Amino acid sequence: MSYSEISGGVTAARGFLAGSAYCGIKASNPDRPDIALIYSLQSAVGAGTFTTNRVKAAPVRVSMMTARSADVRAIIANAGNANACTGVRGIENAKRMVAATAGTLGVKDRQVFVCSTGRIGVQLPIEKIEKTISSLPAVCSESGSNAAAFAIMTSDTKPKEIAVEFEIDGTLIRIGGIAKGAGMIDPNMATMLCFITTDAVIEKKLLQRALSVSVEQSFNRITVDGDMSTNDTVLMLANGAAGTKPLRYNSPAFKLFQRALDHVTRHLARMIVEDGEGVTKFVEVHVHGAASLTDARRAAEAVANSNLVKCAWFGNDPNWGRIMDAVGYSGAKMREELIDIYYDGVLGVKGGMASKTPFAKLQEIVSAQRFSITINLHVGSAEYTVYTTDLSVDYVKLNMGE
Amino acid sequence: MSYSEISGGVTAARGFLAGSAYCGIKASNPDRPDIALIYSLQSAVGAGTFTTNRVKAAPVRVSMMTARSADVRAIIANAGNANACTGVRGIENAKRMVAATAGTLGVKDRQVFVCSTGRIGVQLPIEKIEKTISSLPAVCSESGSNAAAFAIMTSDTKPKEIAVEFEIDGTLIRIGGIAKGAGMIDPNMATMLCFITTDAVIEKKLLQRALSVSVEQSFNRITVDGDMSTNDTVLMLANGAAGTKPLRYNSPAFKLFQRALDHVTRHLARMIVEDGEGVTKFVEVHVHGAASLTDARRAAEAVANSNLVKCAWFGNDPNWGRIMDAVGYSGAKMREELIDIYYDGVLGVKGGMASKTPFAKLQEIVSAQRFSITINLHVGSAEYTVYTTDLSVDYVKLNMGE
Repeated sequence: MSYSEISGGVTAARGFLAGSAYCGIKASNPDRPDIALIYSLQSAVGAGTFTTNRVKAAPVRVSMMTARSADVRAIIANAGNANACTGVRGIENAKRMVAATAGTLGVKDRQVFVCSTGRIGVQLPIEKIEKTISSLPAVCSESGSNAAAFAIMTSDTKPKEIAVEFEIDGTLIRIGGIAKGAGMIDPNMATMLCFITTDAVIEKKLLQRALSVSVEQSFNRITVDGDMSTNDTVLMLANGAAGTKPLRYNSPAFKLFQRALDHVTRHLARMIVEDGEGVTKFVEVHVHGAASLTDARRAAEAVANSNLVKCAWFGNDPNWGRIMDAVGYSGAKMREELIDIYYDGVLGVKGGMASKTPFAKLQEIVSAQRFSITINLHVGSAEYTVYTTDLSVDYVKLNMGE
Repeated sequence: MSYSEISGGVTAARGFLAGSAYCGIKASNPDRPDIALIYSLQSAVGAGTFTTNRVKAAPVRVSMMTARSADVRAIIANAGNANACTGVRGIENAKRMVAATAGTLGVKDRQVFVCSTGRIGVQLPIEKIEKTISSLPAVCSESGSNAAAFAIMTSDTKPKEIAVEFEIDGTLIRIGGIAKGAGMIDPNMATMLCFITTDAVIEKKLLQRALSVSVEQSFNRITVDGDMSTNDTVLMLANGAAGTKPLRYNSPAFKLFQRALDHVTRHLARMIVEDGEGVTKFVEVHVHGAASLTDARRAAEAVANSNLVKCAWFGNDPNWGRIMDAVGYSGAKMREELIDIYYDGVLGVKGGMASKTPFAKLQEIVSAQRFSITINLHVGSAEYTVYTTDLSVDYVKLNMGE
C-alpha cells in the first residue's frame, strides 16, 4: 500500500473550500492578494504546532487556544503584516479577524484558526480586513488552493502546494496542503505557515500526534539562516468526509496515513528551503555515527548554520576545513582523527584529513544546485539530517532593507 | 593611579624583541612576510588561553603543553597555513617549528610557543620554514612589533598593536600586544591570534589568572559570524624586567595591572571586530535586566549572531522586530510586554511595542558606523555585552572563495 501525488493542494480533500482576496496589506506588493480563507463544509477536528519563540505573535496566541477546541471549521490568514509585537490591541485584532470569519461562515469563534505573516510591530488595518473577510466565502471553491497559496506568500517567489491520495478499505483518502516560507527558516519551526487538510476519519488526539511527528521530521529539520520567527504555525484540519472507520493508532491504515502526511510535510519543507531568500543551492547535511541523537543534531545544525560553510558553498568551494571546524565547535562528542566526510557519497575527508579525492572532483559536486554532505563521526550509531542552503550575496541584499 | 597608551606594541616592554621574515606560505599574498618571532632576552613566565573547538590545530596542541612549562622564552607564528586537520605529520611539523626556533635562540624546546593561522588541511612547507626561522633572530629588534603584527595577518586589512604603561612603586611597567583576526570571529575565542608581553614581575599562576579574566571580557565577547576556529590562541609572556616586587593577588598594584591588561585585550578585540571581513558597522549589544548572567549572554549573543538583524543593520534598517525575534528564541527568560530596546540610548521599543520615537530617528542612528543596542528585559538584574558587526554583501563575497 502506498500513496500517490495528486493535484488540488489544500482543497484536494473532500469538503474543503479555499479562496483569497485583496485587502492592501502587503506594502511592497499592494496589488497582490493578501488574505486567504480555507474552510470545511462539515465539522472537522483540528491540530496545530506553533513557534517555540517566546515572542509570539497575537494570532499564534489566539490559535493556540483554538487548537484546544473539540471541533474547528476554518483558517483565516493574512500576509504583509505579522501582527506581532502589537500588544493588547494586536490580540483584539486577531480576535476580530476570527469573529469576522466566524460571522460570515455562521460558525463559532472557537472554530476559527487565525494566522498572520509579514512585518513585525505594525497594527493590522482591521476594518479593511473585516470588510474583505465578509466577501471571502463567495470566492472560495473546491479549486481555490492555488489562490490561497498565492495569498499567503511574502518574499516567496512561488506558491507551495501538494496533495496525495491513498486507499484505505477501498476508499480513497486525501491529504493536501499549502505553505509559505522564505527568510528566517530554522529548525524548531521556521517563519512559515502551513495549512493541511484531510478527509480522513481520525480523532483529534491522534491527528495532533501524527502532525507533531510529521513536523519533527520535516519543518523542524530545515534551516536557511538560523532565526526562528514569532509567527510560525502548522495547522491541520480533518473533516472525516471520506466516511471510513476511524483510524486506529498503529494500525496499518494509520501507518499509511502517517507516511502520506510525512510526504506532504517533507515536500512542503523542501519547497520552503529551495525558495529561501537568495538561495542558489539546496544541501542535505547528514550526520552519522554520533554518540547520541542530540550530538548528531548539534553537529548537523552547526554545519547547516555556519555562515562560512554556506558562503563557501555559494562560491562552489568544498572547503571541508570549515565543515570540520563547525563540527568541532558544535559540542558533539567527537575525535578529529575519526571523522569521514562525503560529498554526494564521494570521500572528501578520511580520518580528519584530506582524502585522495582530487579537489576538482569535490568542487564539481558542490557546483551543483543540489548535493549532500555526509559526516560520519564514528563514535556511535545516532544520526540526524538537516536540509539547508548556501548563503548568497542576494540573501544579504534581500534582507538589508525592509 | 591609571595607565596610559604608548607606542611599541609587543616590544614596548623591556627585554622583548620581535621581527618577521618572508617564507612564501601565503598563497594569496606570496610577497608578504608570513612568519614572526617574538622573544624575551631573559627567562619569562607564560600563560595562554586556547580555542574550545574540539578540532584543534597541531600548534594549539603543542602550545597547550608549552603553557605548562615553568618558564618560556619565545613565540614563533606563521600565517597562510593553519596546520589544522593535518594529523600526526602536522604535530611533527609544529614540533619542528619549535625545535628550529629553540635551536636558533639557544633555548629549550619546551620554552617556545608555536602558532599557525590560515588555510586548514594542508601540510606546512616545513623545510622552508625551518630555513627561514634560522634567519629570524638577526632581524628581531626592540622596534619589531609592527613587523611581527604585519606578518601574522591573513585577511586582516591592517596590523593590530597596542601598548600601555603605568607606575608601580615608582617604576614604569609596560604591557603591549599584537593580534590578528578577521573572519570566523565568535565569543569563546575567535579565529584570532594575540600575543602579549609585559615586563611586570608576576608569578605564572597569577599571570594565567589575570589573562583568563581579561580574555573573558574581551576576546570572548566579540562575534562576527558565529564560527569558532581551530587555531585561536592568546599567549602572554611576563619577563620581570621591570625589577619590582612580585605582584600580589588583589593588591592595588595587581588591580592596576589587571585594568591595564584589560585595556590591551579589549582594544585588540575591538580592532579585530572592526577589521572583520566585509564589516561596515561596529555594534555594541548590551542586555540588562536579565534573570541570570547566562540569560543575559544568551539574549545578547542571539541578537549579535542573527543574520537577519545584521543584514538589516547593513541596510541602515533599525528593524527592532528582528531584535525582538532573536531575543524571543534565545532561550532567555523574558516577557514580551516588558522589553525595552534603546538605539544609542534612544527608546525604540517600549514594553515590547513600537515607541513614539520617529522611525527616521532610529534609521539615522543605525546609519552610523558605530552604535549601541541596549535591551532591558526587566525581569532581573544580570547584564552582558557583546561586540558585533553587520552582515554585508562583501562578507559573502570575501568568504565564497578560498
